[in-house]
Amino acid sequence: MTILMPIGGNENWKKPIVSREFVRRAGGDQADIVIFPQPSILKTTGADYVQFFLDCGARSARSLDFRTREESGADEFVDAVKSASGIFISGGTQMRLPATIGGTPLESAILEAYQRGVIIGGTSAGAAVMPKVMIAYGKGGPTPREGIAQFSPGLGLTNKIVFDQHFRQRDRLGRLLYLIAAHPGLLGVGIDENTAAIVEDENLITVIGTGAVTIVDGSEIEATNVAEIENGGAVAVSSVRVHVLTSGCSYEVVSRRAKISMPELEA
Amino acid sequence: MTILMPIGGNENWKKPIVSREFVRRAGGDQADIVIFPQPSILKTTGADYVQFFLDCGARSARSLDFRTREESGADEFVDAVKSASGIFISGGTQMRLPATIGGTPLESAILEAYQRGVIIGGTSAGAAVMPKVMIAYGKGGPTPREGIAQFSPGLGLTNKIVFDQHFRQRDRLGRLLYLIAAHPGLLGVGIDENTAAIVEDENLITVIGTGAVTIVDGSEIEATNVAEIENGGAVAVSSVRVHVLTSGCSYEVVSRRAKISMPELEA
Repeated sequence: MTILMPIGGNENWKKPIVSREFVRRAGGDQADIVIFPQPSILKTTGADYVQFFLDCGARSARSLDFRTREESGADEFVDAVKSASGIFISGGTQMRLPATIGGTPLESAILEAYQRGVIIGGTSAGAAVMPKVMIAYGKGGPTPREGIAQFSPGLGLTNKIVFDQHFRQRDRLGRLLYLIAAHPGLLGVGIDENTAAIVEDENLITVIGTGAVTIVDGSEIEATNVAEIENGGAVAVSSVRVHVLTSGCSYEVVSRRAKISMPELEA
Repeated sequence: MTILMPIGGNENWKKPIVSREFVRRAGGDQADIVIFPQPSILKTTGADYVQFFLDCGARSARSLDFRTREESGADEFVDAVKSASGIFISGGTQMRLPATIGGTPLESAILEAYQRGVIIGGTSAGAAVMPKVMIAYGKGGPTPREGIAQFSPGLGLTNKIVFDQHFRQRDRLGRLLYLIAAHPGLLGVGIDENTAAIVEDENLITVIGTGAVTIVDGSEIEATNVAEIENGGAVAVSSVRVHVLTSGCSYEVVSRRAKISMPELEA
């Protein structure tokens, strides 16, 4: 089974519900976590996550601290990925990771680990970078507008789904609608802060955390003028199906069905 | 035919595409407009709209300047509504109008005029106040949350539709989703600034203006936990159908179908 665990950013480190779930799925006290801090501009990001994942119960955690394409080729990094039980990508600027490791053996090692069933987690930029179609940057606002988001190639861990992050906090529905109008075959998944969308086998999406995951399904779109609009004009699009899912809710990509978590009836 | 013309606020008075359409549908150079400035706290609102609608080509325009329930009972106001070809409600605070005229002969005169085919226009608060279920106030954000909006009874010109305004500008999708989750039988219509949703016979909605109208259709909702969530928690809701419509696009309430305006092919 493949597992992606994109997180919407700003995980709560004091009550780490989301991060503990990542460590649990990576093997719990058998977990060997490898961290990619490249999206972050902060020197301490890698070391901070090493300590944090150890605090969350992992057996080992290591940050792969390289900054250039050349440095990334070191055997020790490829070997670290090969022996990891969980891989985690930090927040920051999502373009930094594919611009550094795109097309390298290290990127291939991540893809192979993912195919073997190693969980790939990432927060904020680290969530955005997972799919082939990555939202690189863009503006807020609930209405889709021409040019509201720019796309760039990501790691390619999924070709079907696109992740957006800080979703509610930065008001990003418009850019996800714009993307889905531009290619209704993609599924948009907008993830709030301190919330994760756990994706098993590119199909079953389960929500954990304190916010919501917004599913934007364009498979029934009847018409859109997205290709005709210029200069930031508002884009029209009909029949987008939207699900807002909170902790415990799930969604099946293949059947395009959501399951809402309801309280148990009292006796 | 009945006509409502809710406007999302902030009409452009220099290029009054939206307001000219209101005057045109009220009879153009035969239009006799009556203005309700009650939502506004500004003394000049009524007089400003009188001049503006005259500038837009109306034959006559009159502001009904009362502030109390008692004053509103004057025959001259009821007679003015009876002879109007168009009625317009200003922006401001939507609760002020129903709190002043709710249950009075003046309110009945508005309803009767509407049933006779007199166009009822309104901007911002003047749009929100039209339906029976009125969004009284609330917060922004794209995710529905418990208590994100408070409801109050409006004029009752439609029982099927709820209007929200300044939609994109104030990021109000979450409160409309919350409302539709709370009663999936209602249709949510979120109107951007300088944009109108012209509603004929409570069925055909046509968009005019520079922004978008967002249709939130809950008729296919499969599940929601809206009744179970407390303390501002995020509300889950599945299978909401959303349409983002720009100028020239339309929507049929009965069939729940959107029609996107596409460019003509060139010869």
